[in-house]
Amino acid sequence: MPLAQIYVWKGFSEENIKKVIGGVTKVFVDLGIPQEAVEVIINEIPKSHWGIDGKPATESRPGAGPPQ
Amino acid sequence: MPLAQIYVWKGFSEENIKKVIGGVTKVFVDLGIPQEAVEVIINEIPKSHWGIDGKPATESRPGAGPPQ
Amino acid sequence: MPLAQIYVWKGFSEENIKKVIGGVTKVFVDLGIPQEAVEVIINEIPKSHWGIDGKPATESRPGAGPPQ
Amino acid sequence: MPLAQIYVWKGFSEENIKKVIGGVTKVFVDLGIPQEAVEVIINEIPKSHWGIDGKPATESRPGAGPPQ
Amino acid sequence: MPLAQIYVWKGFSEENIKKVIGGVTKVFVDLGIPQEAVEVIINEIPKSHWGIDGKPATESRPGAGPPQ
Amino acid sequence: MPLAQIYVWKGFSEENIKKVIGGVTKVFVDLGIPQEAVEVIINEIPKSHWGIDGKPATESRPGAGPPQ
Repeated sequence: MPLAQIYVWKGFSEENIKKVIGGVTKVFVDLGIPQEAVEVIINEIPKSHWGIDGKPATESRPGAGPPQ
Repeated sequence: MPLAQIYVWKGFSEENIKKVIGGVTKVFVDLGIPQEAVEVIINEIPKSHWGIDGKPATESRPGAGPPQ
Repeated sequence: MPLAQIYVWKGFSEENIKKVIGGVTKVFVDLGIPQEAVEVIINEIPKSHWGIDGKPATESRPGAGPPQ
Repeated sequence: MPLAQIYVWKGFSEENIKKVIGGVTKVFVDLGIPQEAVEVIINEIPKSHWGIDGKPATESRPGAGPPQ
Repeated sequence: MPLAQIYVWKGFSEENIKKVIGGVTKVFVDLGIPQEAVEVIINEIPKSHWGIDGKPATESRPGAGPPQ
Repeated sequence: MPLAQIYVWKGFSEENIKKVIGGVTKVFVDLGIPQEAVEVIINEIPKSHWGIDGKPATESRPGAGPPQ
């Protein structure tokens, strides 16, 4: 405890995945939870499989992408 | 709000993924929820990793597949 | 197959929960999937536990609510 | 995008839930993602329903609790 | 690692919840995974919120219930 | 009912995936639930995307791997 299931668009760099894992863990450590008790799972979802506004994000958010 | 996490067998066509996203979104729009507030995430799972009846679906449902 | 995990704000009426179950099921039936193969799980989340824009929806979306 | 599904033991205070929502959102904002695009859902699980080490946490982690 | 998210109908007894946690953990221990590495989260869903065959299970499976 | 969403490190053999599906199903069959009612979905997560102790498991658990 706790567990964080994170869903992001496919294409996060290894560096940014590390930042998400480290940052989310720190949120709980700052509440007094032991660091080794925190688990963070990153699920990458292709933009074609993530629907927003009734359409795949490839169509409804054509210009947006994962952070560089 | 709302969020729909959809799990299907791997192999849905791009066209059918769009139909799922559009159709599930419309269910909520018909209830009066703004279309842009609906998110739909499609998770494709290989039949070998989807267990039904104590066995992978590759064995317990050998003839079934994603819609064509 | 398929499975839909739906997350909504707490407070959907019994009637609207039925509409979501029926509507989401129909999306897959229209693709040729047998109706009895579709499972839909509705998870109700209190607005205080659903964060948008860095704050609980109770604060960032004070006027919005589940459909009536 | 992104979406964070967070699972914690039941009993987080309203203040700590806000800190989790704010903190997890900031992790993504720091990567350049717009704050309004981040959703965080907090799922509270009773310790009796969270198994660690083959037993409910009520038994395997009797002294531990949510942060105060 | 591993993590099991289990969804059942509301109404499992404390004894059966323990059996699920213990039994699922043992599946992984039998593969050589350390017992303390296994986490099992039990999510209880009201039958009214679990749709099968296009309707809530309260209607499509009226006679069925959680194990006694 | 029931549904088990299982998250493991990428690299489980086909044989071990079958053992997980069969074993988790049996836990519920032993409680009196019909075997054909149990669904088990195996989600494989790369170690680089599974954070423990504030870092990807590739760094915090370099020597550990899926069962052989």
